[in-house]
Amino acid sequence: MKRPIITLLTDFGLTDYYVAAMKGVILGICPDAQIVDITHEIEPYGVTHAAYLLRSVWRSFPEGTIHVAVVDPGVGSVRHPILASESGHFFIGPDNGIFSRVAEAPEVRLLSNPAFQRQPVSATFHGRDIFAPAAAHLAAGIDPTRFGPPLSSFFRLPESGPTPISTSAWVGEVLWIDHFGNAVTSFDTSSFGWVADQPFALEANGQTAHRYARFYGEIPESEPCLIAGSAGMLEISMNKASVAREWKLAAGAKLQLSLRS
Amino acid sequence: MKRPIITLLTDFGLTDYYVAAMKGVILGICPDAQIVDITHEIEPYGVTHAAYLLRSVWRSFPEGTIHVAVVDPGVGSVRHPILASESGHFFIGPDNGIFSRVAEAPEVRLLSNPAFQRQPVSATFHGRDIFAPAAAHLAAGIDPTRFGPPLSSFFRLPESGPTPISTSAWVGEVLWIDHFGNAVTSFDTSSFGWVADQPFALEANGQTAHRYARFYGEIPESEPCLIAGSAGMLEISMNKASVAREWKLAAGAKLQLSLRS
Amino acid sequence: MKRPIITLLTDFGLTDYYVAAMKGVILGICPDAQIVDITHEIEPYGVTHAAYLLRSVWRSFPEGTIHVAVVDPGVGSVRHPILASESGHFFIGPDNGIFSRVAEAPEVRLLSNPAFQRQPVSATFHGRDIFAPAAAHLAAGIDPTRFGPPLSSFFRLPESGPTPISTSAWVGEVLWIDHFGNAVTSFDTSSFGWVADQPFALEANGQTAHRYARFYGEIPESEPCLIAGSAGMLEISMNKASVAREWKLAAGAKLQLSLRS
Repeated sequence: MKRPIITLLTDFGLTDYYVAAMKGVILGICPDAQIVDITHEIEPYGVTHAAYLLRSVWRSFPEGTIHVAVVDPGVGSVRHPILASESGHFFIGPDNGIFSRVAEAPEVRLLSNPAFQRQPVSATFHGRDIFAPAAAHLAAGIDPTRFGPPLSSFFRLPESGPTPISTSAWVGEVLWIDHFGNAVTSFDTSSFGWVADQPFALEANGQTAHRYARFYGEIPESEPCLIAGSAGMLEISMNKASVAREWKLAAGAKLQLSLRS
Repeated sequence: MKRPIITLLTDFGLTDYYVAAMKGVILGICPDAQIVDITHEIEPYGVTHAAYLLRSVWRSFPEGTIHVAVVDPGVGSVRHPILASESGHFFIGPDNGIFSRVAEAPEVRLLSNPAFQRQPVSATFHGRDIFAPAAAHLAAGIDPTRFGPPLSSFFRLPESGPTPISTSAWVGEVLWIDHFGNAVTSFDTSSFGWVADQPFALEANGQTAHRYARFYGEIPESEPCLIAGSAGMLEISMNKASVAREWKLAAGAKLQLSLRS
Repeated sequence: MKRPIITLLTDFGLTDYYVAAMKGVILGICPDAQIVDITHEIEPYGVTHAAYLLRSVWRSFPEGTIHVAVVDPGVGSVRHPILASESGHFFIGPDNGIFSRVAEAPEVRLLSNPAFQRQPVSATFHGRDIFAPAAAHLAAGIDPTRFGPPLSSFFRLPESGPTPISTSAWVGEVLWIDHFGNAVTSFDTSSFGWVADQPFALEANGQTAHRYARFYGEIPESEPCLIAGSAGMLEISMNKASVAREWKLAAGAKLQLSLRS
């Protein structure tokens, strides 16, 4: 039998015992689980960022994977704990939009069955007491229908796709800055892949990039360019340097992309 | 057969090869071990902090788990390498107090049998050469009695529980600051849970909190409050903000808790 | 059957989804893999540092281990993706010198067979699309010869061993600074172990150490000394303090070691 995979994505950091507590609970219920950290370094309460990272990575895992995402400023309050499913993957976490870049209208259930919670449920650590046990019981073979009733609602973050401002110009934004200082943009490569072949200007923070590159080594070290990033979005990048630092970019920075004639 | 669980808690950080060397040694001896990191980001030589994190998390793991904790400023010197057991869990590391928040008087053995050490034992890396192999051999089924003779002593850190200064006031301290900037206090929720129902004042660093909350979302964003934290201690917390930064608190800061009439 | 071990060493950091994407791909191909992180905190493009960490740790793992190392400033360009083997271990990554501290002339193959790549191969993320799948297929039992043809070349980083400047003095350098602020030097303990028994002077940055210690606790807290580190190199160390900070040392700093008569 295949070992069930459970991924974890949180804003808990790695300096506390929080992530380990979730893993201990999981292994107590499903000793054979294969647990994979996505990241625990989401900035505190960064639901939007978490949603984008999850979108970028979930399809790299095989079908049947259970993704637990806990960036949960509303812990203890009324937001629902949910189990969502999409394309054979499962998603467990708070219904605060964290899964809304993965699926538009997934099947969603409330995690309300106390038999699959760690009792007593603390008011501040649903990661350990609700989400980790749910993932482990699901991994151990409990049928999704047993966790709670179906929900018809599913909280979605506001759309952040690019907006056209003319027939040849769009406004977008920086979604996040990666570890190397690349600025991942809201321009997806399927709609905006034409930058590879046509002249363009990408403006941000008073600076402009005109060049497209297939990979980092293709460009001079000091010149920012657009690259088709591995997450399916255009990225503003520099060869061996941080464009985020050079251009002073952060998540949320406005971008304008124009087709030049 | 269940896969044996080995947890690791160190001050080694994640930038070196030290943690990986321990894991390599473990898997060479017990290929089926399920290794879980608690944290490796204890500040260097922070035995007290490590002891509290371990206390907060060990019961989240199932019985039979082997916890390896290596915060070991005395490596190579006379402190004993030990194997302790408590409530069906095993604890492996230096006898410097790191397990003294888990158990008062556990069964303790010296790790002296060279057959279960990696030879030659280096003078600076007992994590790799003594503690990791001991954990792996134990996980692989070696009987605890074979690692070395019983020890009658067990080093305990000084008590740090709250001290009464009147019939309605206690002095305590900040045990540690978590990733979100919550200040975990030495007031445990079993003795001081009355803050949920009775008026109180918690003073620290010239600031005062008067309010109890069940969860973060329950309070205004700028108001510090007490919360029953998931580690079984009261925490000073703010909703989406760091009370440690706002109040300039660090581990060891003095606290005074008073019952108000 | 033993679970195959795959180690990962990158400069990807832990804030992105990059490492998790590699793990997802690996587990999709070889669900039983035991994945171990060495570190992902190599400074961006730090091939030399990565090469030294890998040298320090690979022998702590059992034979058959597959080591994937991706510090790859040349991703997408002409450097070869390779599979190298040495002493029963396998090494997968770019041919940019990252394995050249492990082996002088290992057996090397080009990773060119598209059947063992994730299609389409992105130009910026060979970790996910070439190296992770190769490791997983190898772990799942695919014969090394099927990945691609043998290569006769193997890129080696320049030697950085100590240079004699007289019959009793050598110039070396700091290879890296560890998490505790110890400065790992290019003086290996097999050639320079005589510092344990003979008077010496180790100069760096205008400062001098004269003392050898077997372990940290043996020396006064304010005195730098030489120690035989666990990686097989001499280290400049202080007891509970960072010699890197005290002496303002960084990787690459020049050192002079002299035998005193």
